[in-house]
Amino acid sequence: MPRFKIPEITIERLSIYLRALSKFSDDSIISSQGLAEIVGTTDAQVRKDLAYFGEFGIPGQGYQVGKLRDEISHILALDRSWRLALVGAGKLGTALLAYPGFKRKEFQIVVVFDNDPNKIGKEIGGKVIQGVEEIRKLLPQYGVKIGIITTPAEAAQDVADELVEGGVEGILNFAPVRITVPEGVKLKNVDLSMELEILSYFISHQIKGRKVKYEKSSH
Amino acid sequence: MPRFKIPEITIERLSIYLRALSKFSDDSIISSQGLAEIVGTTDAQVRKDLAYFGEFGIPGQGYQVGKLRDEISHILALDRSWRLALVGAGKLGTALLAYPGFKRKEFQIVVVFDNDPNKIGKEIGGKVIQGVEEIRKLLPQYGVKIGIITTPAEAAQDVADELVEGGVEGILNFAPVRITVPEGVKLKNVDLSMELEILSYFISHQIKGRKVKYEKSSH
Repeated sequence: MPRFKIPEITIERLSIYLRALSKFSDDSIISSQGLAEIVGTTDAQVRKDLAYFGEFGIPGQGYQVGKLRDEISHILALDRSWRLALVGAGKLGTALLAYPGFKRKEFQIVVVFDNDPNKIGKEIGGKVIQGVEEIRKLLPQYGVKIGIITTPAEAAQDVADELVEGGVEGILNFAPVRITVPEGVKLKNVDLSMELEILSYFISHQIKGRKVKYEKSSH
Repeated sequence: MPRFKIPEITIERLSIYLRALSKFSDDSIISSQGLAEIVGTTDAQVRKDLAYFGEFGIPGQGYQVGKLRDEISHILALDRSWRLALVGAGKLGTALLAYPGFKRKEFQIVVVFDNDPNKIGKEIGGKVIQGVEEIRKLLPQYGVKIGIITTPAEAAQDVADELVEGGVEGILNFAPVRITVPEGVKLKNVDLSMELEILSYFISHQIKGRKVKYEKSSH
């Protein structure tokens, strides 16, 4: 029987489907077409994404919203609670501590680190800032499995190494630099200016509301 | 001759290729395989992404770094300068004003708005904060084509409407809510907690460094 590695883009879409489903009542039925329209994809894509994980639909009708939401939550492991550490109590770190999406029951920042002696010991978002030299000692005590890096670029690799030593299994890196982690640790680099580049492309290539299509060179 | 719509994921990868290329000297040659390895994709994918836009490679060798970088910059319209407006001078807005990726010559935040009378008239990141009621009047004066929304959820749609009235062609929305814009305006929603959901999935599905593969149901 064939075995497939699930593409990351499918996981991203599951996350988008979950948001779309939250607008419907649990016992309503949504078709793959209906879900596709809300999230801006095709019904074939919706069915393909979900088929990786099993058969959730009612043939000829669609998906029961509550059941599908539970299934996706389970696939994404959102039916558990993740404890997060934030490293870098600067402007971006402060903003993330206040960000609604980082205050969900599934994702809780439980400890904050910085290397600035003027910040260590002070409170931010209800947490006392710890020194970065405490990372590897404190993470296991706090049960942290995910680290968020919001330091300047030059500090990011050292911080990532400490987070890995402290036992994290995933890192979300906002520092504007590529870092490396050992196999077995999942790294997501977030570069907010990439979103601007994508906007730049689409704005430049749409003329009066109609998207330009490229001609593919025939060879 | 067939005409193709370019997938957004291809545009995202162009942006990633551009970052990878910045580490090499202009006159060096990089193979599609080499580029693929750096960014974590396949050489077939690299060739396919670039083939949408023409023939950039030297057959049997690869791509000249400087030339490819110029081509991608041109495709992404990064060989021009975009003027941006930021709406919402809270924690996230303040962080973005200081974010290196939003201070590039291609992307410059030239005006900042807020609805808080205590903030209007004050300076932030070298800009005097303007009232949101000035948006549609000031955007054309500042030549703004891209708006960034960092307001609370409940204000985001009204702000988007004002930005559209002011003539923006693209919006980057950080508010944790879905907003709508007319056709011809490109919207990118940034939900930072989606990145956490993707991490959550990958951490849960890797066992001692080896990724679990799902079995596809046979039917």
